[in-house]
Amino acid sequence: MKLYGFFRSSAAYRVRIALGLKSIAVDHAFVHLRRKDQQAPGYVEINPQALVPTLITDSGQPLTQSLAIMEYLDEIQPSPALLPKSPEDRAWVRSLALAVACDIHPLNNTRVLGYLKEGMGLDQAAADRWYAHWIAVGLQGLEAMLAKDSRVGPYCCGDQVTLADICLVPQLFNAERMNCPTEAYPTIRRIAAALRALPAFQAAEPGRQPDAE
Amino acid sequence: MKLYGFFRSSAAYRVRIALGLKSIAVDHAFVHLRRKDQQAPGYVEINPQALVPTLITDSGQPLTQSLAIMEYLDEIQPSPALLPKSPEDRAWVRSLALAVACDIHPLNNTRVLGYLKEGMGLDQAAADRWYAHWIAVGLQGLEAMLAKDSRVGPYCCGDQVTLADICLVPQLFNAERMNCPTEAYPTIRRIAAALRALPAFQAAEPGRQPDAE
Repeated sequence: MKLYGFFRSSAAYRVRIALGLKSIAVDHAFVHLRRKDQQAPGYVEINPQALVPTLITDSGQPLTQSLAIMEYLDEIQPSPALLPKSPEDRAWVRSLALAVACDIHPLNNTRVLGYLKEGMGLDQAAADRWYAHWIAVGLQGLEAMLAKDSRVGPYCCGDQVTLADICLVPQLFNAERMNCPTEAYPTIRRIAAALRALPAFQAAEPGRQPDAE
Repeated sequence: MKLYGFFRSSAAYRVRIALGLKSIAVDHAFVHLRRKDQQAPGYVEINPQALVPTLITDSGQPLTQSLAIMEYLDEIQPSPALLPKSPEDRAWVRSLALAVACDIHPLNNTRVLGYLKEGMGLDQAAADRWYAHWIAVGLQGLEAMLAKDSRVGPYCCGDQVTLADICLVPQLFNAERMNCPTEAYPTIRRIAAALRALPAFQAAEPGRQPDAE
């Protein structure tokens, strides 16, 4: 398989973690988002949304959207499982992952920040305020989901590393990189610290990728 | 089971369609988003993100995030299935659903449009331009995914109604309600027209809900 990614894309970061947890080795191709490589005709052919990541399967099929790719990996190689067993717990884990993937990350990614400035005429300070606002709203919600739930253990769902954890760490990484305060989210910080000690999370860090700048 | 929703929420609209397709009857509770009922302490207790929908399961567990809820419904009542069988096709369907749920809808929902105006000081015309921009970018990407793929049939994935279809119709409904042009998306329009003829899609329409205004 082959993964098209970008070191700083947190959606690609998620897929790198999932591949590492499952010890699946893939070829890597790099799509430089700031140079707009994602809009090159050859890339749009495999990812019509012009986003990263894209996973090319062994049969040559391009798969897009990080959560869809990770569910695919979990289906073709079920161990270690990225979802718990009971339908209610699976929904809980997916809801945490989606709270990041739908309600935080899409508001703060490169194309949105670019459009706030180039399309809406806002300055960098306004874009930074926007970024910090959605990080705060999103992490507050996530902290509230995690802080009071008895299913939380060392990781989001007991001691199993799941899709929720895989989405959490790249999002917290982004918040810290943009100097957003995180003191109000002790559960998130505790879980992320435990996850960051795991080799699959370490190997997937943006700074450790071949295309890192 | 009990569904907390709002007639105009397209995430709640998705869950209503899924429940209808599976002929699962639930009690309905209404959370008025413009009156900010979603921020009432009693509701935040069950949905810490202060969003709709929330599904209360038969065991009393609150489930949040529409895609997580629909995967749950598909797991507890597998027929009719909302996902195809092969892992690659499942990833394709999920990627279409996520292209809506991550890359279009979160940029244009009530809280984001509110923050553009109240938090960023933009006027209604600027907020409308923002809305139209992300509808156009999102539907262009989705049209490109659908227009060239041999798996597309009467619906997004052959003749099976899937999560992709369930996400598509509410998103197109919103685009039309906001008078965004859709002529450039003939595949989306054709599929949506076929879906809108189905009873489960009709019954879930915002205007047919008890809390419709």
